[in-house]
Amino acid sequence: MATAEKSGEIAINMSETKASTKGKAPLLNSSKAFAVVEPPNRGAKRGIAIADFFLRLCALGAALGAAISMGTADQLLPFTTQFLQFEAQYDDFDAFRYFVISLAMVTGYLLLSLPFSIVCIMRPLATAPRLFLVIFDSIMGGVTIAAGSAAAAIVYVAHTGNPNTNWLPICQQYGDYCQSASGAVIGSLIAGAVLFFIVILSAFALKRS
Amino acid sequence: MATAEKSGEIAINMSETKASTKGKAPLLNSSKAFAVVEPPNRGAKRGIAIADFFLRLCALGAALGAAISMGTADQLLPFTTQFLQFEAQYDDFDAFRYFVISLAMVTGYLLLSLPFSIVCIMRPLATAPRLFLVIFDSIMGGVTIAAGSAAAAIVYVAHTGNPNTNWLPICQQYGDYCQSASGAVIGSLIAGAVLFFIVILSAFALKRS
Repeated sequence: MATAEKSGEIAINMSETKASTKGKAPLLNSSKAFAVVEPPNRGAKRGIAIADFFLRLCALGAALGAAISMGTADQLLPFTTQFLQFEAQYDDFDAFRYFVISLAMVTGYLLLSLPFSIVCIMRPLATAPRLFLVIFDSIMGGVTIAAGSAAAAIVYVAHTGNPNTNWLPICQQYGDYCQSASGAVIGSLIAGAVLFFIVILSAFALKRS
Repeated sequence: MATAEKSGEIAINMSETKASTKGKAPLLNSSKAFAVVEPPNRGAKRGIAIADFFLRLCALGAALGAAISMGTADQLLPFTTQFLQFEAQYDDFDAFRYFVISLAMVTGYLLLSLPFSIVCIMRPLATAPRLFLVIFDSIMGGVTIAAGSAAAAIVYVAHTGNPNTNWLPICQQYGDYCQSASGAVIGSLIAGAVLFFIVILSAFALKRS
């Protein structure tokens, strides 16, 4: 509350400065010197903004790695019959295809969000870019977790199979393929968790001190 | 907003009346009246808190319905062999068991969070309960989306099968079972989306005006 009041005073006094260049009494300037004292939590908010930026880079790396790892998961078994070649690719499962599309989208968003994060570092008390980031971070965090969980469910069945439905495990044959997919799932869940952590940090950055 | 200011003023004046009946000095009363000036956005914040409460009830209903719908999904096929009885239950899939546990947990959390939401309605400018809710809403929203997506991936394979891995669709036989599970998935995704919306609303409630 104190922050809001003081930042309000700063805005008012800047307009007063403009007025004083138009030849008003110097008394106004002294009131400005009194009012531009920084709110005590401006440094803390800047620290949160810097942490936000680096966490965003971490999430970007994890999401990009997950998308590439899943998208390049491909295994050709070393034996063929006359008619069949045994190959597993990421688009054999619709959940994996959705995973690659979602993670590519999240990676693109995280890249585009970096300038907004930099704006938040330069202006720690600005609420508009921070709110923008909270809204889209929440949505993209949800998309990341959803894609990761859906792929995780499929990877789990691929590893263990399901005797109730006669779904046989395929990871015994396609071991490398399953490892790439599992790594991608882990990367996406890390990216999702980091995005949620960024949302919580943003809530602290937004709160009235 | 004008209403909130007026109701605030009414409250102040009533307390002043009480103080004056106790015979205090009028100077104290005037300083008190100065300090209790309300910030202009208190009414908006109270509106957000009320919306939060009702959205929380919606999410509670959706999560409870999803948990019950999945937990009671059970179908016995009308034919048996001498040795086998064909029955599908929710715990035939590990993803569905995880779904029921998660959604039950989320339902419990939402129930326990209602008092905090009420505190936020009564004290719209308090940040501590709001931050508490943001942190746990984010986590529980993530859990809900994760459980819903994992179950959705399994339901999708159960509906369409996967010819690449010879996983046959089981929904042709267990139609009712699949319908219960699909309904539960939809309920959980609605609950998750509402939780994310609550997080975004909370960010608006927390922001400096």
